[in-house]
Amino acid sequence: MGEVIVPSPADFHVHLRQGTLAKLVTPHVRKGGFTLAYVMPNLKPPITTTAQALAYKAELEAIDPTVEYLMTLYLSPDLTPEEIVKAKNAGIAGVKSYPRGVTTNSDGGIESYEMYYPVFEAMQRVDMVLNLHGEVPSDAATNIHVLNAEPQFLPHLHSLHKAFPRLRIVLEHATTRAAIDAVKECGPNVACTITAHHLALTVDDWAGQSFNFCKPVAKFPDDRAALRQVIKEGHPRFFLGSDSAPHLLHSKSTSTPTQGCAAGIYTSPILLPLVAHLLESFDALDKLQGFASTFGRSFYHRDLNAEQTHKVVLQKISAHVVEGKYGAGEESVVPFWAGKELGWKIVAS
Amino acid sequence: MGEVIVPSPADFHVHLRQGTLAKLVTPHVRKGGFTLAYVMPNLKPPITTTAQALAYKAELEAIDPTVEYLMTLYLSPDLTPEEIVKAKNAGIAGVKSYPRGVTTNSDGGIESYEMYYPVFEAMQRVDMVLNLHGEVPSDAATNIHVLNAEPQFLPHLHSLHKAFPRLRIVLEHATTRAAIDAVKECGPNVACTITAHHLALTVDDWAGQSFNFCKPVAKFPDDRAALRQVIKEGHPRFFLGSDSAPHLLHSKSTSTPTQGCAAGIYTSPILLPLVAHLLESFDALDKLQGFASTFGRSFYHRDLNAEQTHKVVLQKISAHVVEGKYGAGEESVVPFWAGKELGWKIVAS
Repeated sequence: MGEVIVPSPADFHVHLRQGTLAKLVTPHVRKGGFTLAYVMPNLKPPITTTAQALAYKAELEAIDPTVEYLMTLYLSPDLTPEEIVKAKNAGIAGVKSYPRGVTTNSDGGIESYEMYYPVFEAMQRVDMVLNLHGEVPSDAATNIHVLNAEPQFLPHLHSLHKAFPRLRIVLEHATTRAAIDAVKECGPNVACTITAHHLALTVDDWAGQSFNFCKPVAKFPDDRAALRQVIKEGHPRFFLGSDSAPHLLHSKSTSTPTQGCAAGIYTSPILLPLVAHLLESFDALDKLQGFASTFGRSFYHRDLNAEQTHKVVLQKISAHVVEGKYGAGEESVVPFWAGKELGWKIVAS
Repeated sequence: MGEVIVPSPADFHVHLRQGTLAKLVTPHVRKGGFTLAYVMPNLKPPITTTAQALAYKAELEAIDPTVEYLMTLYLSPDLTPEEIVKAKNAGIAGVKSYPRGVTTNSDGGIESYEMYYPVFEAMQRVDMVLNLHGEVPSDAATNIHVLNAEPQFLPHLHSLHKAFPRLRIVLEHATTRAAIDAVKECGPNVACTITAHHLALTVDDWAGQSFNFCKPVAKFPDDRAALRQVIKEGHPRFFLGSDSAPHLLHSKSTSTPTQGCAAGIYTSPILLPLVAHLLESFDALDKLQGFASTFGRSFYHRDLNAEQTHKVVLQKISAHVVEGKYGAGEESVVPFWAGKELGWKIVAS
């Protein structure tokens, strides 16, 4: 197969940052082949109100108006059922829940869900999506660490789904076989995003290599096999959310023993060719359209008719080397797969 | 308790390197409180003959003659039963086995043990110690990765012990509960070293922090608890081998996505105070003498009488901040615990 057409590719989990960094990375959504970006709210300060979300959306549209930005709110005690109704009416698509302290700008994240039940009730009523960062915080006393933080979270997923069966929930960036199985067991209102990099990496790849370090961390080969398998099955509740998370070069490299590196892998500028390359590597290229567009659009009620669809064309090539970085000097960002070859290239977008 | 005396502290696993780096780090054995160093043979080229080992020993003695250096050979197909006899007669203490490719300069490491049985037979006969780096190489197809590489190795330990019950074997730098249990199950000829840093770290500490990255990688909180517990028990077949492994600053920091950092943590210059500090943290300070001297000396037949003993005195202090680095510029090495406080200090050595 020398060419693949993907109808209006949609990235259902992306970090577009703010200020200077937003100006650098926002255009990379389209450069990477995507016409829809589901935008995470973990800014400083976090996006907790409809007004903030709309202002942020306007900022992104001013940078690149050719992408559809679906906005989210950051779950916190300040969020009220009234704000949910307001957000829904303003076109905001979801609410993102972060466990406290596990990833970039998550210090205000949640510790227990029950206090949010009135908010979830409102979300269920107005049909807004709950996006879960599915990890519990590490705790040496109970043997919870970065490798089992996701499996340990799954009982919360089941409890939430049981308490709010009509609430649409997305378990974000699944990395384990346990998570894949848990989402499959749930009903049609529970879906799951999978990143591109978790289809490539295992723990061995981030051991001693901070550029491959992200949260959730890549797990074991058997977990990676489960992610690949569910895509190969063409399961419609598993779709792409890149979790593309740019960090400036200096915060990704570790040069001192007192400061660890930032968690995050940046895939936006090469996303569609990378996903094609990876799916081809495990014989799932025929699932690219579903995984990178239609499954997610369907779950999010964003189906398009033929007229609305923007066709992106990928062509098989012998060797396309990914750029080493974007931006200049201290303000640069290193993409995933930097300096390595991809077998696919966007020829029409 | 304000003072602890340790009789002739012995570090039964240390990397002293060669050339310029050896000149920097060899004096740190004594600086860290130790009068015996069991020296690893993974140089470039590896120490595979008696002649090389004796030349290396002379090099180390020229740098610091106040330390007793116990030398080892690197297990490889070139090693013959005849060379074992020669090595024994020259005072060489052990043979170190590296699995292929799992750590620094291990490209010539072993893949299967049966071909070495004639060598092990000779070692058993002349009473030379076999030192095992107890990990199997990662293999995605069989779900072997850096976190389970040690448990997956343990059947090899049991096979070797069964085939050569009188051969003294040391499982080096154990990091898992499974390894502790396996060594306990073996007879009196099988012992185990434990590093200082594995008493402090878990996987969360090296996730995104290359200065805490070493092989074997630090595992889960429950594994760390097992290492601490066996020391607290005062089990005489578990003793200190620091695996202190200096790497120059530039090879520990990750500044590009194509080059991972070197595996290794450097503890030599602060070793005895660090071990005291850590043992105190889990109420095992009363086991310091056994863990850092007598247990290992006894297993290696290096007991000392009162006259031969060199007493090292540690004093409890309020705050001693560990140096940020040793050496200058590109030639510098960052120690473990850099910039952090230790509660113990050597006052007589």
